[in-house]
Amino acid sequence: MKTVDFIPFQSVTLTDGFWKDRSDLNKNVSLSNVRLRFEESGRFDALRFNYAETGKKPHIFFDSDVAKWIEAVAYLMEKDPIGMREHEALCEELIDCMERAQRPDGYLNSEHQQVSPHLIFSNRDRHELYCAGHLIEAAIAYHKATGRDRFLAIMERYCDLIERVFLLEGSAQFMTPGHEEIELALIKLYRHTKKEKYLKMARFFLEMRGNNEKDKPIYEDNRFGSQDDVDIRHLESANGHCVRALYLYSGIADLAAETDDFLLFENLEKVFSDITNQKMYITGGIGSTPTTESFTVPYDLPNRTAYTESCCAVAMMMFTSRMRRLSKQAKYGHLAERVLYNAMLSSTSLDGKSFFYENPLEIALEEYGREVAVPRRQHARLPITQRVEVFSCSCCPPNINRFFAHLGDYICVDEGDGLCIEQYISAKVNTPHGSITLTEDYAREGKARIVGSGYTKDTISFRVPEWCKELTVLLDGKSVNPTLCEGYAYLSVGEHFCIDLDFHIFPTFICANPMVRDNVGRVALMRGPVVYCIESVDNGARLNRIAVSTNALAEATEELDFHSLYSVTLPATRLKNNPSLYFDASKSACEPMRIKCIPYFAFANRGESDMLVWIRRK
Amino acid sequence: MKTVDFIPFQSVTLTDGFWKDRSDLNKNVSLSNVRLRFEESGRFDALRFNYAETGKKPHIFFDSDVAKWIEAVAYLMEKDPIGMREHEALCEELIDCMERAQRPDGYLNSEHQQVSPHLIFSNRDRHELYCAGHLIEAAIAYHKATGRDRFLAIMERYCDLIERVFLLEGSAQFMTPGHEEIELALIKLYRHTKKEKYLKMARFFLEMRGNNEKDKPIYEDNRFGSQDDVDIRHLESANGHCVRALYLYSGIADLAAETDDFLLFENLEKVFSDITNQKMYITGGIGSTPTTESFTVPYDLPNRTAYTESCCAVAMMMFTSRMRRLSKQAKYGHLAERVLYNAMLSSTSLDGKSFFYENPLEIALEEYGREVAVPRRQHARLPITQRVEVFSCSCCPPNINRFFAHLGDYICVDEGDGLCIEQYISAKVNTPHGSITLTEDYAREGKARIVGSGYTKDTISFRVPEWCKELTVLLDGKSVNPTLCEGYAYLSVGEHFCIDLDFHIFPTFICANPMVRDNVGRVALMRGPVVYCIESVDNGARLNRIAVSTNALAEATEELDFHSLYSVTLPATRLKNNPSLYFDASKSACEPMRIKCIPYFAFANRGESDMLVWIRRK
Repeated sequence: MKTVDFIPFQSVTLTDGFWKDRSDLNKNVSLSNVRLRFEESGRFDALRFNYAETGKKPHIFFDSDVAKWIEAVAYLMEKDPIGMREHEALCEELIDCMERAQRPDGYLNSEHQQVSPHLIFSNRDRHELYCAGHLIEAAIAYHKATGRDRFLAIMERYCDLIERVFLLEGSAQFMTPGHEEIELALIKLYRHTKKEKYLKMARFFLEMRGNNEKDKPIYEDNRFGSQDDVDIRHLESANGHCVRALYLYSGIADLAAETDDFLLFENLEKVFSDITNQKMYITGGIGSTPTTESFTVPYDLPNRTAYTESCCAVAMMMFTSRMRRLSKQAKYGHLAERVLYNAMLSSTSLDGKSFFYENPLEIALEEYGREVAVPRRQHARLPITQRVEVFSCSCCPPNINRFFAHLGDYICVDEGDGLCIEQYISAKVNTPHGSITLTEDYAREGKARIVGSGYTKDTISFRVPEWCKELTVLLDGKSVNPTLCEGYAYLSVGEHFCIDLDFHIFPTFICANPMVRDNVGRVALMRGPVVYCIESVDNGARLNRIAVSTNALAEATEELDFHSLYSVTLPATRLKNNPSLYFDASKSACEPMRIKCIPYFAFANRGESDMLVWIRRK
Repeated sequence: MKTVDFIPFQSVTLTDGFWKDRSDLNKNVSLSNVRLRFEESGRFDALRFNYAETGKKPHIFFDSDVAKWIEAVAYLMEKDPIGMREHEALCEELIDCMERAQRPDGYLNSEHQQVSPHLIFSNRDRHELYCAGHLIEAAIAYHKATGRDRFLAIMERYCDLIERVFLLEGSAQFMTPGHEEIELALIKLYRHTKKEKYLKMARFFLEMRGNNEKDKPIYEDNRFGSQDDVDIRHLESANGHCVRALYLYSGIADLAAETDDFLLFENLEKVFSDITNQKMYITGGIGSTPTTESFTVPYDLPNRTAYTESCCAVAMMMFTSRMRRLSKQAKYGHLAERVLYNAMLSSTSLDGKSFFYENPLEIALEEYGREVAVPRRQHARLPITQRVEVFSCSCCPPNINRFFAHLGDYICVDEGDGLCIEQYISAKVNTPHGSITLTEDYAREGKARIVGSGYTKDTISFRVPEWCKELTVLLDGKSVNPTLCEGYAYLSVGEHFCIDLDFHIFPTFICANPMVRDNVGRVALMRGPVVYCIESVDNGARLNRIAVSTNALAEATEELDFHSLYSVTLPATRLKNNPSLYFDASKSACEPMRIKCIPYFAFANRGESDMLVWIRRK
């Protein structure tokens, strides 16, 4: 298939603005804080292979946690090698350890080598190939950033073993991994090394899934849950564990790109539609149940028990950007924007130190209270209400680290015949067709500026956000009407140009499809790309008692007070207390109030609080 | 304490009408059907003590299931010994078997004698004293009905052992039973035999609860869940397993009655308020979670996962009628009425053959669909959607059997200085103060007639239903204004009188306290004592999309088509489909429709259907 590429982050320099702030916070706070927590929790020790001395038992997924952290460091080294010196030293130490510990046959896994050697390649859910995949991604990034190939060589030796065991001898007790990841990593390795065998290996793992008798389903008898129900050429819907599913779909997209397999792309389009039209929260979050952390059935999107793992936000970005490489459709960038401003940002506390694993769309603290009344079993599991610095299953924090470290990857596409702006993120972008300077006041004022310098193509295109109802474009200060086509605007430009965009942002109430039972009779406030929520710290407890009329927007006031975005204050009503448990409806009464709505991503930053996205509609 | 007595069912003959129909259905269909299912499932075999021959392993609670069935037969024998011949023969057979099987020391329990003799009196949750309690109740009923004391003698021998093991030697590995029941049974035995020791035993089990170090909590470390958190003199709220709790509170009420202990009554008043003001469904059902089948925290009353076990309806009737014996307050009869017309009736299918264990207030079949998408673990457990003839834990069906078999017990109170009508149930009531004939068209037309004959007191009182907003009373055809006092109306009457009551019934919308999160912004339709619901079989699927305005009642139409009660048809609106998952609220649209509301108790009688009590309010 014809594919296009995003301008790689190495050629993109974020400049002052909303996203540079987030990116800097990741670099200056989150990354170091994750390092501290990982050191404390023995994650680095895992890859120091010092279990015998320290007695700190590595977990089967520790290698992947560390790998993602190294990958983040590598990305950041490209831009700021000096700032990363201290982290680089730790990376080198760990690479030393891995080099020493790697078995002569190439095997490398801290848990299985130190704790469970008898279980090597015996159980597809023990995350060996998943860890390998993340280590491969880290090794590639590290090689690119430093030019040093020690880490890459380690991983290539490991890949030789994996090829032998899985493809040549078939001697492992399974054929495809329980947790997908190695597929996309192998294609990345193929692209980096140009060695065909890695593409062949990726293809093997992708094509064998759901296509062999050897693999046992991960979840009891539910092949659905581990994407074993169909093979990739019969894929129609998104199923099972969300992160695993999205990593799989990303790998398939990569395979489609490398092999011109249009059927694979068509299937992924069905999957993309299934997710975005039936299985996605308004925040871009996915995962409707903590049970196996998975997709469930269409329109099943409960708010309080939403799973919406932070890693899913990262995985959605991976998937949708790969789809964009295969096809110029604005829906991919729309999704990326939705995820970025909501599901992605909500993962991290405003101080950058703490993380959510699950990102619910409602917190009703009284629901947590009920757990004191009964023993802890059979409960509908509720997510934690405050971000924490480290989890026992701490896949998300380093995933966020590595994501923000290469945020520049998602901004601008090189279409060959011109550039296309996908995301409005302030940055200087160096491209083969000249230099672009993006400046945005996007989420706040709905505006952006694109300045071209030495541009060698005739046309530039940019994505028109799905929330934009009125578009004003100035080219070099003069109003112009760009050609609009399938969500993109096209402008003819010269060598030097300045495009000013106004997408006319204002608060809007959004409804969910009536099939989504939790949201029936409710509205969510959005302002441009940003989903809003209400918290009890501003609005009093039991937020469900509040109702808004959609006319309330006429009386909305805005204040610049949340993470340099506006809060929105609206008239609403609150059900009055009543002493009776049941009473005549004629005695039900409301009192007027004003509610303060803040960006969803900023929730749970002012102590424990009730929170609600979908507000009752009057 | 001064107590009063209900006129016992032996002196009450139900006459044609709504409740005689239910009572006859119980006698003619339910009882026999439960017998068939219990025979198939080895429950009678348990008490035949034939495990060695049949290999049918008895469960630890089988004795109690059979005991309740025998108790039902005994009640019915009082009125119709010939009709019960065949059932009586089975009772005699089982009594023979128990007599033969009873250990020389008096011990009697089918499971522990045949399967687990090593576990006798070792674990308070193994239901030994619970089974003993039910067998005692059955033996008393059987003795009263037949005059034959074999069964009673068996149970008195067993009680001697229980006294020795628990009170005299303290040799059991626990002090109080995990599942309360024996307490109230022992007081019943004390009243029947006049032997003080049974009162002493009841008192022991009641007073030791939450008052000793020997008892381990049933639910992990949650003493709350098994009513072990406080002793009965410090009781303030209703906690833990609902049936166990209500059986305990009933036992305490009996102890208060027998010992003039006003503090116990005061505590029970707190418990009663806690239940009826904070922890009870509109149907009179209780139990907010299948987790330990228990109460949770105030206002936690989820509809789809409501537990509301059918046995709780029986237990509520037991508790509230005991409270009424201690204090003349209309709230007890109000509660009994609410339970009778809703939580109690919903337990049984209209054909009398099948039963619900749980009685949810909402069924959303799409919620069940989600279970296909993920493995069965960590789910919020949803109740079954259709009644079945027998459960593995089949405590409810015989509890319903015995309840309806002595329904006459709940109608009329002898206050000493006059009679008081508590429930409007068509019946002839023979009392020490003359004969009363009650005729009702209560739930249908809000009317009742009380005819006195040979009445020897000056005053009669009757409960004014809590839903009654206008009361019309005719005494011997002439309009009178009775004295109203705390929910009761008082009339001076002569030896012969006829009182015609019109409580002016009409459909009303009810709101729940705004603290009940599931019901915020919703209304339930009631018509007199009857709670209504809507089903998808009448109104289409996804009932949550329907909304009503409270003005709709002005356009309501009624039809006599549900179990001789009215259905109510109202104008409403339904949210229209929309192809998008999220869309501008201005594009949300409704279509007008009429909804048909049927009595809640009749739900799930026309195949599997969505069902909703709390309808969205426009």
